[in-house]
Amino acid sequence: MTEAAGNATNARVAWIAGVGASAGLGAALARRFAREGLRVAVTGRSRDRLDTIVDEIERAGGLAVALPGDVTSESELAAIARQLSGYGTLEVAIFNAAGATRGPTLELSTEQFETAWRVTTLGGFLFARASLPSLLAAGRGSLLFTGATASLRGRPPFAAFAAAKAGLRSLAQTLAREFGPRNIHVAHVVVDGGIDGERLRTSAPQYVAERGPDGLLNPEDIADAYWHLHQQGRSAWSQEIDLRPFNESF
Amino acid sequence: MTEAAGNATNARVAWIAGVGASAGLGAALARRFAREGLRVAVTGRSRDRLDTIVDEIERAGGLAVALPGDVTSESELAAIARQLSGYGTLEVAIFNAAGATRGPTLELSTEQFETAWRVTTLGGFLFARASLPSLLAAGRGSLLFTGATASLRGRPPFAAFAAAKAGLRSLAQTLAREFGPRNIHVAHVVVDGGIDGERLRTSAPQYVAERGPDGLLNPEDIADAYWHLHQQGRSAWSQEIDLRPFNESF
Amino acid sequence: MTEAAGNATNARVAWIAGVGASAGLGAALARRFAREGLRVAVTGRSRDRLDTIVDEIERAGGLAVALPGDVTSESELAAIARQLSGYGTLEVAIFNAAGATRGPTLELSTEQFETAWRVTTLGGFLFARASLPSLLAAGRGSLLFTGATASLRGRPPFAAFAAAKAGLRSLAQTLAREFGPRNIHVAHVVVDGGIDGERLRTSAPQYVAERGPDGLLNPEDIADAYWHLHQQGRSAWSQEIDLRPFNESF
Amino acid sequence: MTEAAGNATNARVAWIAGVGASAGLGAALARRFAREGLRVAVTGRSRDRLDTIVDEIERAGGLAVALPGDVTSESELAAIARQLSGYGTLEVAIFNAAGATRGPTLELSTEQFETAWRVTTLGGFLFARASLPSLLAAGRGSLLFTGATASLRGRPPFAAFAAAKAGLRSLAQTLAREFGPRNIHVAHVVVDGGIDGERLRTSAPQYVAERGPDGLLNPEDIADAYWHLHQQGRSAWSQEIDLRPFNESF
Repeated sequence: MTEAAGNATNARVAWIAGVGASAGLGAALARRFAREGLRVAVTGRSRDRLDTIVDEIERAGGLAVALPGDVTSESELAAIARQLSGYGTLEVAIFNAAGATRGPTLELSTEQFETAWRVTTLGGFLFARASLPSLLAAGRGSLLFTGATASLRGRPPFAAFAAAKAGLRSLAQTLAREFGPRNIHVAHVVVDGGIDGERLRTSAPQYVAERGPDGLLNPEDIADAYWHLHQQGRSAWSQEIDLRPFNESF
Repeated sequence: MTEAAGNATNARVAWIAGVGASAGLGAALARRFAREGLRVAVTGRSRDRLDTIVDEIERAGGLAVALPGDVTSESELAAIARQLSGYGTLEVAIFNAAGATRGPTLELSTEQFETAWRVTTLGGFLFARASLPSLLAAGRGSLLFTGATASLRGRPPFAAFAAAKAGLRSLAQTLAREFGPRNIHVAHVVVDGGIDGERLRTSAPQYVAERGPDGLLNPEDIADAYWHLHQQGRSAWSQEIDLRPFNESF
Repeated sequence: MTEAAGNATNARVAWIAGVGASAGLGAALARRFAREGLRVAVTGRSRDRLDTIVDEIERAGGLAVALPGDVTSESELAAIARQLSGYGTLEVAIFNAAGATRGPTLELSTEQFETAWRVTTLGGFLFARASLPSLLAAGRGSLLFTGATASLRGRPPFAAFAAAKAGLRSLAQTLAREFGPRNIHVAHVVVDGGIDGERLRTSAPQYVAERGPDGLLNPEDIADAYWHLHQQGRSAWSQEIDLRPFNESF
Repeated sequence: MTEAAGNATNARVAWIAGVGASAGLGAALARRFAREGLRVAVTGRSRDRLDTIVDEIERAGGLAVALPGDVTSESELAAIARQLSGYGTLEVAIFNAAGATRGPTLELSTEQFETAWRVTTLGGFLFARASLPSLLAAGRGSLLFTGATASLRGRPPFAAFAAAKAGLRSLAQTLAREFGPRNIHVAHVVVDGGIDGERLRTSAPQYVAERGPDGLLNPEDIADAYWHLHQQGRSAWSQEIDLRPFNESF
């Protein structure tokens, strides 16, 4: 990114937290926003995985930077936000992290319950606080959150995950009402179904096969929806959309 | 449309019902889908208004046809659907009609309550039945419904309007679950706020002024969302989205 | 009711519409409110069925009267409301009628779709208009509506039933917001599951058997909830409650 | 409780956590369940306040015991649960604690956001885990949660409170689906409005005055609803009810 640094302050920047596998939603979001000409900063816990994605994007002609960090750490997010200001003007911030514990409720440990909240709800809060000052300073921008079926209803074995996702959804609503009138578009995307990514392909290959073509959410299709949200005219912003495969039962 | 008729069966067709004023949502939807290259059929009760919109679209280089009719009439919708088959392949059908009665509930007449339902809920049902056979025959397509704040909750003085809109929303859900697996994308758009169109500008000019720039939904911005819904990959379809101005209180 | 007629104007009256089989919810509501000392007026289309229920109630020491009528008829409901005023003071009005059509949406006739709405949504509107003047004149009272799973979401094969029930729920919300401040308690009861009554025992005996003890909603248990709603102190009124068997999947 | 201790194992026990001021909901719940003949165990952080309530209940002829503790402490709740087993059979457990932080979201500290979650969501989780084994061992019982307007939607200045309450509501849904079939009635009560208790009377006396008679929720009226939930026949359990004053705008 050395050569580009000269006009960094003119660059439009997208910050995406919760980026892991290349075959995952975070990476697809990064590729999509880079393809649209934004300089993309990707945050996740694994520097190796981030570097892989940055390489992909740069080979495709885009601009990206890996800023590893833990979304549960206020200080790490604050440090990343400071770094970001050197890359250009933050225009869109996407929170895509989640802690996906499962199990019978009486068998979940307190630590599991807490970790799900730290990664999902607290992470969303800390990410919003780290990114909103830049968005507000720019006078416009989008703050987008990834939700799930569990965001809308609690159901075993997802007591911890669902409670955390419900908290994140509530937070997104508060932020939309608080910062919409200040020209920040806050939206929540309910991903209702399995994502066709590394996680499911590794952990549940048979399920993936059974769902058939387009029976799982394609990360690129999901990323289209995020890009559209970012492009919406402010006279008609969506606060919440759902996304699910055509053949999903719901 | 004479010259185009030769290759009509290759044309992609959008059918939009509930089209009235040029400065309204129905017209904006027609312009948008025409701009994307679809042949647009517009249905509403006023032939004059439809002709105006068709003229606009054709002057802009698009293809459109006025097919006036009453959405509460099964036979008229069936006749239009038959005509449509001569224009090409139906790809998207949009139901945008609504009967917007208001008043204290005890002062609403039975006729007012029934008319709101006929135009809004029954109209949606009849429109779905008129358009779905063509969409199913084509093996794909979108069926989109316009909702409102009132779709989600009943509130005076909107007893009739809200009950009718709630019925339409329920119908859209049923159709999504029934025809999604058959490759038809059924979605419901909750327009939460006033639309910056002829109706409000005529009936409530002061309200329009007070809302400020982008404080009412711009029909073109709404139309963008419909177009995006139609473009979504089927691995990640939205069933419901909301749209509201950035400064709307909700 | 001859002897009681002398002090009829002092009597507390419950009006229940949508009363059919003795082994059904309408009848259970009538029995329950009669047991609490109210004079109960039961409305339904079958005089024979109403007479059976009136006999049961009177044999148990309660007061009841059969006022047959069609909830889709404004004039019949108005006539019943006039009759009611001679029996005492209307204190609670319950709308329990519904038209339960089912079928693939494309196979539902327009008449089926309309009938479901007439009985369910329009019926609720007409019943509200027939009963509210008496409740308002009394300065207090309850207006209760029976909902269903379908009130909350549309799902095949219930396009007609669900759209009608959604409309009724919306209406109940409007009425609650409009008449709550005038001291009328308007509530909507979501009955989420099969009712252990004549209808299911006749049409689906195997399903009834499979559900096991308490696996279907007992009409007497449902009636308890309606009575509780009517008893709630006005500082803490419920607008909507759900009811379902302990082992229901939801 | 000395004399009653002899037949303690026959006693029916209610455990209520989140008990503070005598003029508050927790105390009203305790009085109500004691009046119905249950032995009531009250948990809160202030022993003095608990003792006051126990005195009131005992003077009224009821049985109560103060078991102070912090709902955010797994070990304290576990210790209380062990003590409870000596008092009789746990029949109903009510979680009424909440952390009610408010403020502009960017001015909330991480600690405030976390504390709201610890008291409200984690507390509910720990309380459920502490009480469910006893309820399951008894083969029946109720587990009830106090919700708020904020449980259903996020809105400034309640980012922390709403996210925590949304998490608690989600948890209640999971538990209802998980333990309903095991004969445990899990319900969530949405208290939509101000409670006429010590907190509001102290912090917002003018608001209290403006609301007028019954314009705030009377704790005794709320407690009626909890008692009714506990009494519901298992063929017709409510999972969620709302409660609001007759003149509340919603």
